Amino acid sequence: MAEFLKLRTAEEAWALFLRHFQPAPARETCALVDALDRVLAEDIVARHPLPVFSRSTVDGYAVRAADTYGASAGAPAYLDVVAEVAMGAAADFALEPGEAALVHTGGMIPPGADAVVMLENTNRLAAPMFGGRPRQAGFTAFAIEVHRPAAEGEAIIQPGEDVSAGEVVLRAGQVLRPQDIGGLAALGVTHAPVMRQPRVAIVSQGDEVVPPDQEPGPGQVRDINSYTLAALVRRAGGVPINYPIVPDEQAALDRAVRRGWEEADIVVITAGSSVSYRDLTAAAINRAGQPGVLVHGVAIRPGKPTILAMCDGKPVFGLPGNPVSCINIFLHFVSPTIALYLAERPAPARTTRARLARNIAAGSGRADFVRVRLEEREGETWAVPVFGKSNLIFTLVRSEGIIEVPLNSNGLPAGDEVTVVLD
Amino acid sequence: MAEFLKLRTAEEAWALFLRHFQPAPARETCALVDALDRVLAEDIVARHPLPVFSRSTVDGYAVRAADTYGASAGAPAYLDVVAEVAMGAAADFALEPGEAALVHTGGMIPPGADAVVMLENTNRLAAPMFGGRPRQAGFTAFAIEVHRPAAEGEAIIQPGEDVSAGEVVLRAGQVLRPQDIGGLAALGVTHAPVMRQPRVAIVSQGDEVVPPDQEPGPGQVRDINSYTLAALVRRAGGVPINYPIVPDEQAALDRAVRRGWEEADIVVITAGSSVSYRDLTAAAINRAGQPGVLVHGVAIRPGKPTILAMCDGKPVFGLPGNPVSCINIFLHFVSPTIALYLAERPAPARTTRARLARNIAAGSGRADFVRVRLEEREGETWAVPVFGKSNLIFTLVRSEGIIEVPLNSNGLPAGDEVTVVLD
Repeated sequence: MAEFLKLRTAEEAWALFLRHFQPAPARETCALVDALDRVLAEDIVARHPLPVFSRSTVDGYAVRAADTYGASAGAPAYLDVVAEVAMGAAADFALEPGEAALVHTGGMIPPGADAVVMLENTNRLAAPMFGGRPRQAGFTAFAIEVHRPAAEGEAIIQPGEDVSAGEVVLRAGQVLRPQDIGGLAALGVTHAPVMRQPRVAIVSQGDEVVPPDQEPGPGQVRDINSYTLAALVRRAGGVPINYPIVPDEQAALDRAVRRGWEEADIVVITAGSSVSYRDLTAAAINRAGQPGVLVHGVAIRPGKPTILAMCDGKPVFGLPGNPVSCINIFLHFVSPTIALYLAERPAPARTTRARLARNIAAGSGRADFVRVRLEEREGETWAVPVFGKSNLIFTLVRSEGIIEVPLNSNGLPAGDEVTVVLD
Repeated sequence: MAEFLKLRTAEEAWALFLRHFQPAPARETCALVDALDRVLAEDIVARHPLPVFSRSTVDGYAVRAADTYGASAGAPAYLDVVAEVAMGAAADFALEPGEAALVHTGGMIPPGADAVVMLENTNRLAAPMFGGRPRQAGFTAFAIEVHRPAAEGEAIIQPGEDVSAGEVVLRAGQVLRPQDIGGLAALGVTHAPVMRQPRVAIVSQGDEVVPPDQEPGPGQVRDINSYTLAALVRRAGGVPINYPIVPDEQAALDRAVRRGWEEADIVVITAGSSVSYRDLTAAAINRAGQPGVLVHGVAIRPGKPTILAMCDGKPVFGLPGNPVSCINIFLHFVSPTIALYLAERPAPARTTRARLARNIAAGSGRADFVRVRLEEREGETWAVPVFGKSNLIFTLVRSEGIIEVPLNSNGLPAGDEVTVVLD
């Protein structure tokens, strides 16, 4: 009747799991408008430079810089303006010495020009002074005074200044942010190669568990874990598949696990924490495929009665039924498994530093994960532990993050600076 | 021909905008499975306590604590076990002195019992010792030795220990996290009252702009901003509506702005940064409604040529066409506008502290926002500025965050610790 869990540390458990995990991720393409937060499946190489042509960064006159050397307000340089480069139009004429062309911000720089003088540093005169002939039908040439010399390259973006042809601009495994999507658009990649999101089957078990839209009778509780797990799967980049609640019966659990295994890439079972539930779960997992249960019991609190398993190539997890433990273990093992499936490059967790508001005793022989809420006091952030049994979902609702009291530590004294992993 | 922008600081501009902004957000309900990251529209009050009934936190025997006082391995207490509380079943019998009931983790505590003894601290014997009569059909009574005294309340979660009836458990304005969704499920809230997500019309303008699936001709560039803005709108909690690219023509822009105004709650126009584009944009906005343009020009780099406007109650923004400026200004003004529309409680930005790898010169008369990438060197995080003109989208792709060089500062020296707002 006693607990026969063989506890492993989180690190040992994960290492053992990894030795059996060969993720077989698949790729797909995704319209750019839907690509936010998807994981890129291959390196993106620029097929052409960006920009493709020289562009002005200001409103002004494209000039030959040498024509403006020594110019000042007192002794301006004079140039004939022979064309205006319309936005989106090619500058299909070459600028001769003594000539200039009106350009707009983002407009193309005509051949021959090597700098742009801002409008503010010029003065427009009536007629051309050097017989400058218009290069465009309908354009009336005029002259300008230039009051400041322009350096070669001034106010011009050169071709390839943003990106060179052949450059790797985005790397496989990265999660696409808004600007990355902009970068893909700039290169004409309207369908992004992304990793297929793994489907995660969520099987919630227990005779006492009823769907949340049902009024629980005496001894019954509403299903919480199906909902938190589905949200956590989404946040980790997977696609959740929820199944009806499974009663406390081996054959029903076997069928549900089998169905999850067939329809999904990863199976997550959450059941009560009683020994009988654990035995049912382990048996169902061992029947679902080889080698079956790898780890049964992890030195983590909350979350000790955890199962890590591999069934014919697909990861299967048995999570504790207590909602707090369930979430803690999901973040420890299932989120990283989804990330591996997505071949996602490791990103640092979202953390903040805070000062601990109360002593936290050491857990004996296990890593302790303590929920905290954050409080600002006199310009400092304090982490206030939110204690409570691991069945109390609202301890999580009241908290904003988590701190770890490592295995074999002496606890954490109040006033210490700690790292809070934010929700 | 010169620039006639009347620059305002970001703070002045925002204050002026707020004086004209009376968001009229709407509510709707959302199935719990879709509620992740939605903003809660009203306080949630627990209609009943959680848990509703006393529950065991272990596998063991529900007892009257007084019956175990003084028990030890050498001098155990003896009790008759008269029932097993099945999971999900009511414990519909009262425990008499000298009696115990088998309970599982999460199971209901029978009336009369006030503690649970863990299985590990008991020893099962064959026959009842005190004539304990089974309270359930088919149950065979037996006796146990108890080797440790149980304190009153031990291993029991009391009704209301997680949440009391009438308690406000979630607040209007908060963004729903996985555990919050679990909390709603626990209380039977299967359809969450949430804020309707504002629709944001995105109008991209410019004769030089072509859709990204098109090969740009000489002088043309692909549309980037429609894509980055749509992703930024999603990230901020809005719903983007994209429109076809508008040519550089007043009537066409007027029509597009008007259509956006009619179909959306917020309108965002992005056009080139040339004076002519800015004039068109301002005119179109002023025709779309009263009072029209409030701010034209903000002392922020990148992003100076920005328009903040209010047209008959709906916010309208003119963002610079340069993609880097466009994103910077969106994050400054449009994201907070969406948050106000959602009545979202302010959440701290995701930041990290880092050491600055290079000097950054002060911007004169404006707040400078400098993109940085993060590098780990000898256990320290360094922020390396990614310089580049504001038309270079890939400066953003290569960066991971942004630091502010405040208005009227003397710049930031290398080695200083800075706060990086992460992407």
